[in-house]
Amino acid sequence: MMILRNSPPSPFGRKVRIAADLLGLADQIEVREVDLNDPADSIRVQNPVGKIPVLILKDGTTYYDSRVIVEYLDHIAGGGHVVPRDTKVRFEALRLQALCDGILDASLLMVYENRYRPPEMHVQSWLDRQADKVARGLAALEASPPKLDQAIEPLPNVGQITLACLLGYRDLRFAGTWRKDYPRLVAWLDQFAAQVPAFAETKVAA
Amino acid sequence: MMILRNSPPSPFGRKVRIAADLLGLADQIEVREVDLNDPADSIRVQNPVGKIPVLILKDGTTYYDSRVIVEYLDHIAGGGHVVPRDTKVRFEALRLQALCDGILDASLLMVYENRYRPPEMHVQSWLDRQADKVARGLAALEASPPKLDQAIEPLPNVGQITLACLLGYRDLRFAGTWRKDYPRLVAWLDQFAAQVPAFAETKVAA
Repeated sequence: MMILRNSPPSPFGRKVRIAADLLGLADQIEVREVDLNDPADSIRVQNPVGKIPVLILKDGTTYYDSRVIVEYLDHIAGGGHVVPRDTKVRFEALRLQALCDGILDASLLMVYENRYRPPEMHVQSWLDRQADKVARGLAALEASPPKLDQAIEPLPNVGQITLACLLGYRDLRFAGTWRKDYPRLVAWLDQFAAQVPAFAETKVAA
Repeated sequence: MMILRNSPPSPFGRKVRIAADLLGLADQIEVREVDLNDPADSIRVQNPVGKIPVLILKDGTTYYDSRVIVEYLDHIAGGGHVVPRDTKVRFEALRLQALCDGILDASLLMVYENRYRPPEMHVQSWLDRQADKVARGLAALEASPPKLDQAIEPLPNVGQITLACLLGYRDLRFAGTWRKDYPRLVAWLDQFAAQVPAFAETKVAA
C-alpha cells in the first residue's frame, strides 16, 4: 500500500484523493491523517516544509506537492488520463491547475489571517489584496468555464479537478458566497459532481 | 517572439530565465518587466491572480506559473532536457522543485510581512513558523545536496535550477545568512554557477 498523509479539509489533499479515485488507485492508497498541531508529527520529516498532501511509496520514497503526486499517480495508471498528453490540452489543463492553485493560495492566506493572528493584528489591505486575486480569478473562470465533455475526455483533467476542489473550499471556508456571483461556475460544479462520485465522497462538513 | 512578463528579483522568474537559456530559447523570448504597483498593468489580465512570471506565446496564449512555463519551454525544445523523462529522475526533480518552491513561498511570506504590514502589525509566531519551514528545508537539502554530474545529466534539471534560485533569493533578501549554516549548499551553488552562466547573468544587486 502507498500512504497518503492528508487532512480532510485540505483542497490539495482532496485533489489527490479525487484523482486517485478516478485513476482506479484509491484502494492502493491508505490515507493517514496529519495532526498539523502536533510538532512531533512525522509530516515534517516526510516533507520538510510541513505541508500536506505527501504520498509515501512502498519503498519509503516521498512525493509532494499535490501537482507532483497527481502526475505520479497518472503515470503509474498508464499516463495521459487526468494529465493529458496532447500539448495544447495538457498545457491548458496545467494552466487551469496553476490558476486554481493560485486562487486557493490566496484563499488559504485569508483563512490563515484568522488562524494565526489575533483580530487586532489583521491587516485589511492584505486581506483585500488576497480577495482581489480570488475575485479576478473566479471572474475569469466564470467568463469561460472549462468544458466537461466525456465524449472528448473520458475523465476530467487535473485542472478541472482542481477547480472543483477550489469551489468546494470556497463552500467550506467562505460559506459558499461565491455562488451568488458566479452562476456558470455553480452549473459547472453540479456537472462535475454528477460525473465524479469522489467529489461528494471527499466532502467535509463545515 | 514569445514575451515573458517578469520582475528581475523574482526567484520564479529567474527559474524560467535560466531554463530558457539552458534550452537555447532565450533569444526567442522578450522579457517585459511588470510594475506590480501599477493597478493598470496588464499582468492581471494575463494571469488573474496577478503573479509573475507569465509566458505569452505568439498567438496570445498565456502560460503560468513557473512550473508550467518551464515544462512548456522544455517541451518545445524537444523534451527531456531540464524536465527529465526517466520516471525516477523526473519525479525526484519535480519533488526537489516542489521543496524549493515551498521554501521560497515561506521566504516570500517573510518578505511580505515587511512589505505589506506596518511593523506594529508583525506577528512573530507567524514569522517563526515560516522561518522553521525554511530551516527544515535547507537542513534537508544540506544533508544530501542533489548531484550535479554533467556526465549523467548534461543540463541541470528544473529541481536543481530552482534550488539555485532559492539560494540566490536567500542571498538577495536575507543577506546570505544561510551560508554560514549550510556549507555543502554553498559548495553546491558554486558548482552550479560554474556550469550555468545564466545564473550570474540573472543576478540582481541587493
